Amino acid sequence: MFTAVASADTLSKTLSPVGTLVDECRIHLDAEGLRISAMDPATVGVVELSLDRRAFESYEADGGVVGVDVERLDDVVGMANSDDLVHLELDEETRQLRIRIGGLEYTLALVDPDVVRQEPDLDALELPASAVVEGRQFDQAIRAAEMVSTHVAVGVDEGEEQLYVDAEGDMDTVHYELDDDDLVDLDVAPAHSLFSLDYLADMNRVVPTDTELTLELGEEFPMRLSYEFADGTGEVLYFLAPRIQNR
Amino acid sequence: MFTAVASADTLSKTLSPVGTLVDECRIHLDAEGLRISAMDPATVGVVELSLDRRAFESYEADGGVVGVDVERLDDVVGMANSDDLVHLELDEETRQLRIRIGGLEYTLALVDPDVVRQEPDLDALELPASAVVEGRQFDQAIRAAEMVSTHVAVGVDEGEEQLYVDAEGDMDTVHYELDDDDLVDLDVAPAHSLFSLDYLADMNRVVPTDTELTLELGEEFPMRLSYEFADGTGEVLYFLAPRIQNR
Amino acid sequence: MFTAVASADTLSKTLSPVGTLVDECRIHLDAEGLRISAMDPATVGVVELSLDRRAFESYEADGGVVGVDVERLDDVVGMANSDDLVHLELDEETRQLRIRIGGLEYTLALVDPDVVRQEPDLDALELPASAVVEGRQFDQAIRAAEMVSTHVAVGVDEGEEQLYVDAEGDMDTVHYELDDDDLVDLDVAPAHSLFSLDYLADMNRVVPTDTELTLELGEEFPMRLSYEFADGTGEVLYFLAPRIQNR
Repeated sequence: MFTAVASADTLSKTLSPVGTLVDECRIHLDAEGLRISAMDPATVGVVELSLDRRAFESYEADGGVVGVDVERLDDVVGMANSDDLVHLELDEETRQLRIRIGGLEYTLALVDPDVVRQEPDLDALELPASAVVEGRQFDQAIRAAEMVSTHVAVGVDEGEEQLYVDAEGDMDTVHYELDDDDLVDLDVAPAHSLFSLDYLADMNRVVPTDTELTLELGEEFPMRLSYEFADGTGEVLYFLAPRIQNR
Repeated sequence: MFTAVASADTLSKTLSPVGTLVDECRIHLDAEGLRISAMDPATVGVVELSLDRRAFESYEADGGVVGVDVERLDDVVGMANSDDLVHLELDEETRQLRIRIGGLEYTLALVDPDVVRQEPDLDALELPASAVVEGRQFDQAIRAAEMVSTHVAVGVDEGEEQLYVDAEGDMDTVHYELDDDDLVDLDVAPAHSLFSLDYLADMNRVVPTDTELTLELGEEFPMRLSYEFADGTGEVLYFLAPRIQNR
Repeated sequence: MFTAVASADTLSKTLSPVGTLVDECRIHLDAEGLRISAMDPATVGVVELSLDRRAFESYEADGGVVGVDVERLDDVVGMANSDDLVHLELDEETRQLRIRIGGLEYTLALVDPDVVRQEPDLDALELPASAVVEGRQFDQAIRAAEMVSTHVAVGVDEGEEQLYVDAEGDMDTVHYELDDDDLVDLDVAPAHSLFSLDYLADMNRVVPTDTELTLELGEEFPMRLSYEFADGTGEVLYFLAPRIQNR
């Protein structure tokens, strides 16, 4: 059983981060809220997303898993204005999700959860360094890096107490640095890893520019990007595997 | 003889509905205003448009017909700001339409009206059901239907006293319903017909979202869509032939 | 030695007019400001641009020439908001330009000035007629002309005391005229020349619509287009060679 009502804006902010990595996903519909966990086909990026029941106008679920075409569901939600209410109701017999927005009722065929790619099983990961940046700072760093390269080094300069993003092109280079004054928060520790800009650019696209984004980093370790949405009732966690250092 | 002055906005709202169906059309320049009637090459859609002389700042015509390239004329009008005045003057000798917008004079070569496709000869059509919807409601229904199918059923549910729009895809379905509370007006009668979304989407694109749109419907009958513009001095009527029911 | 700070907006207005004509250019960094002079590969258009040191928040240069990829530099400046300050610093040893915008440092590899196309050596040109128009008037004339042709006649009607722009298509024609009342200024003299719309359209794209644009013209002579920017501390001069009259 699942029936819920939420603003189109909240649902869109829930679906878009998942849609950057996968076409289809499982949604866990628990009593306390919904959870999504998915890994991209190349197993480079993982997203873990939760949205608490408090984010909804009304929410009722007794546990269960549905498989959905993420982009399709995001498109349907996109038919609404951002503060329109979207009514969701699971029809367990027909395995359909009924989506109602005003006079519009869209019946979405669900995907068999068993044919959706397995969810990732992440080992607990201790990342020693962390920095809290504004979405717009991250955006500027990633867009500048894209001008010169396909990958980027992200790390912490322990001496200067700075977070940095470095990209090296054949001709030009980009160096982006933020120290304690520029950052919301910084925990200094050894950290330097190389990442694919393809993935970082996709993730960057869904991070609201006015959001605080937490980066957690290590030495040739995955990066953990996380931020809250829907007044803190929702959370997005991205894990991004490092590229092998090519020097 | 024809010479007239109107706002660019009024002229654009006159030309765009015609341009969705045909490339060239005849414009009848009568003493009381102008009239356009055109049918698309596949003979599925018809537009009948009138614009009263009161829509113009000044208007003089003594009857006559000109053939025009609709899109071209719409593009020239589009050079103006929407509240700029556009001066039109027919040069009967050279068969040219002189269009003046401020210091700009565009001389448009007219098309021989005899080579423009014949105007449709519509039998008077009694359509039993009718509904008055807002442009934005129609827009939402059509856009949702386009997500799942290439055609759509539009009808009136006599029991529920509702206008509905139904589209059925291979996987997903769209059902849009508006009852008396949602509608500006509804005349209940048996009505259910299938229409091509290609045409409806094109027509929808030119209907202002804040306009009241009248739909007239029957059982496997054409649909009549009409709305006013330019403070009621202009009227657009679309007729759309039904598709054959495929079940 | 060169180090300077200016608003992104000022730098963008300096680079864009050059980027419409050439990919790479020399920038002369003099004590009083910077100068750029460049001719397009087809030797049809020339741009001469100057930006006074007063346009900068701070400026220090002791003379010297750098070669730059104009579009690339414009893209980097475009990463900033228009009122952000952009810090420029020349590293003479590595022949790199260091561009700093907040926490972002972009290191741009310079181009050897000796491999950049020679700067044009323009003979002093006496152009008898001139008109001062608003950018938006010029914009409307050029866009209308583009609808019918690939070239345009620009001239002064001595009898009517008007500046005109004429374009003749296979079917339609455009005539644009501005007399003393419409113009900021007009110096009447014999003037009529044909120009490529490709070039004029590119030049038009960078002229701000709210700017006064000075056109200087003669009989089958080049056109001189000039305007100021950055509160009069910057000036753009375009020279455009006439096309041969084809009648």
